[in-house]
Amino acid sequence: MLIIAERINATRKRIRKAILKRDAELIKKETRVQLEAGADYIDANAGTEPEREVDDLAWLLKTIQSEAHCPVSLDSTNVKALEAALPLHEGTPMINSITAEQERHEVALPLAKEHDALMVALTIGPKGMPTTVDERLSAAHQIAELVSQHDIPLDGVYFDPMIYSVATDGSGGATALEAVRRLKAEFPEAHVTCGLSNISFGLPQRNVLNRTFLPMLLSAGLDSAIIDPTEPHMTGAVLAAEALLGRDEFCMNYIKAGRAGKLIDSGDSTKQRN
Amino acid sequence: MLIIAERINATRKRIRKAILKRDAELIKKETRVQLEAGADYIDANAGTEPEREVDDLAWLLKTIQSEAHCPVSLDSTNVKALEAALPLHEGTPMINSITAEQERHEVALPLAKEHDALMVALTIGPKGMPTTVDERLSAAHQIAELVSQHDIPLDGVYFDPMIYSVATDGSGGATALEAVRRLKAEFPEAHVTCGLSNISFGLPQRNVLNRTFLPMLLSAGLDSAIIDPTEPHMTGAVLAAEALLGRDEFCMNYIKAGRAGKLIDSGDSTKQRN
Repeated sequence: MLIIAERINATRKRIRKAILKRDAELIKKETRVQLEAGADYIDANAGTEPEREVDDLAWLLKTIQSEAHCPVSLDSTNVKALEAALPLHEGTPMINSITAEQERHEVALPLAKEHDALMVALTIGPKGMPTTVDERLSAAHQIAELVSQHDIPLDGVYFDPMIYSVATDGSGGATALEAVRRLKAEFPEAHVTCGLSNISFGLPQRNVLNRTFLPMLLSAGLDSAIIDPTEPHMTGAVLAAEALLGRDEFCMNYIKAGRAGKLIDSGDSTKQRN
Repeated sequence: MLIIAERINATRKRIRKAILKRDAELIKKETRVQLEAGADYIDANAGTEPEREVDDLAWLLKTIQSEAHCPVSLDSTNVKALEAALPLHEGTPMINSITAEQERHEVALPLAKEHDALMVALTIGPKGMPTTVDERLSAAHQIAELVSQHDIPLDGVYFDPMIYSVATDGSGGATALEAVRRLKAEFPEAHVTCGLSNISFGLPQRNVLNRTFLPMLLSAGLDSAIIDPTEPHMTGAVLAAEALLGRDEFCMNYIKAGRAGKLIDSGDSTKQRN
């Protein structure tokens, strides 16, 4: 699966402070720990203040890529910030995110085409946030149509089913699972990702819910996720799920991670049988 | 979900020793810790030596039920041991297990009928261990027919899809998930359980695989499992999965368990964001 690592986000106080102070060391460290935990893409969210975001996002991108040759997911809806950052990106960039709303796709799709960027596509239609699974699929079909009009291959699209917390709606988990199943069935060439931690918003021990939901989503067809890969036991959940779904030949990645001590956090080894 | 707790099994050295020595304290303690970890049924396997099993299983059952008013799953294929134990059982007993093999069902079904026992029904046909999902379903249909001939309601049957380790067959996980989905679809009144830990046989850090696979199986329709509920993080996985699938109204059980400190083992609380 493709892991998009979410920790470098200006909505977090210490990241916002690091961006404002141009604290490159902190950003590089966040890059490193996420890559060590299995990240494929590093998400970069520089905040949403229009007068700052253009410079801040460019600095964030350069700082991340100065630490490692890893691709970055540019988490912005600001056309100027994207226009400034995309030419600086080494490798295949990702734009996070587009929707079927005109003001979102008319900005992002030409840029994605120009820079061969992958895209996170939120299943939000022109009328706003979806309620039902059908509304999510309808938004996905509109996005697929727009993507095709721009001559962009569908395998560059990572649909996001828009997960809502089970704290506010008991059917939030079932809705997301059904949406993932249908997205994968109706768009076999496209990918399905998600903002995983939305599922646990407002609940205690969120990481227990997050790491339990991810394997469920993967078995429903998810092949990417926007997560904090450093959450306790998340690496184990991801590697175990891939082995269990037959996506890890001879369980070699799982076994190797076990040997390197990456599957368990303290607490796992305390109980022995016999 | 219905948790059948598997730790009291004579294939484990210390349990075998406790049975031979009539060490009631150890058996009572194993009963207690499993109930505290969420067990609904306590499985009792007294070993398979024909000259001993009749007395040993009866002693095991009495010892477990002297500790707590909990139902017991009698894990035996020995008709004499079952005939001796079933009349001693208080509450609704479970017989673990029957199959579509003549020597198995002709013993267990009349006893299940006589004692109103629930049954674990392994999806093994007359020709032995199944390979494909179709063979599992075919065995289930044969068992359903036999159960109906004995006038036993299907909601007393817990089908077991026969999980094989992903270490020996990379498709073991996918096969089990598909079998659970089809068993639930074709027998909506029946239940689906499984011997969960078979999935991880031969692999390191088995509990990581076990607790990752259980939520996947639950989202495929499983509503019971034969597990060690005391494995690290298993309680969290079960309660999180039920909340995520909308089977825990307002996430109350999850929230309560969180308040009681039951969701996390050491290691979960070490990482803080912001």
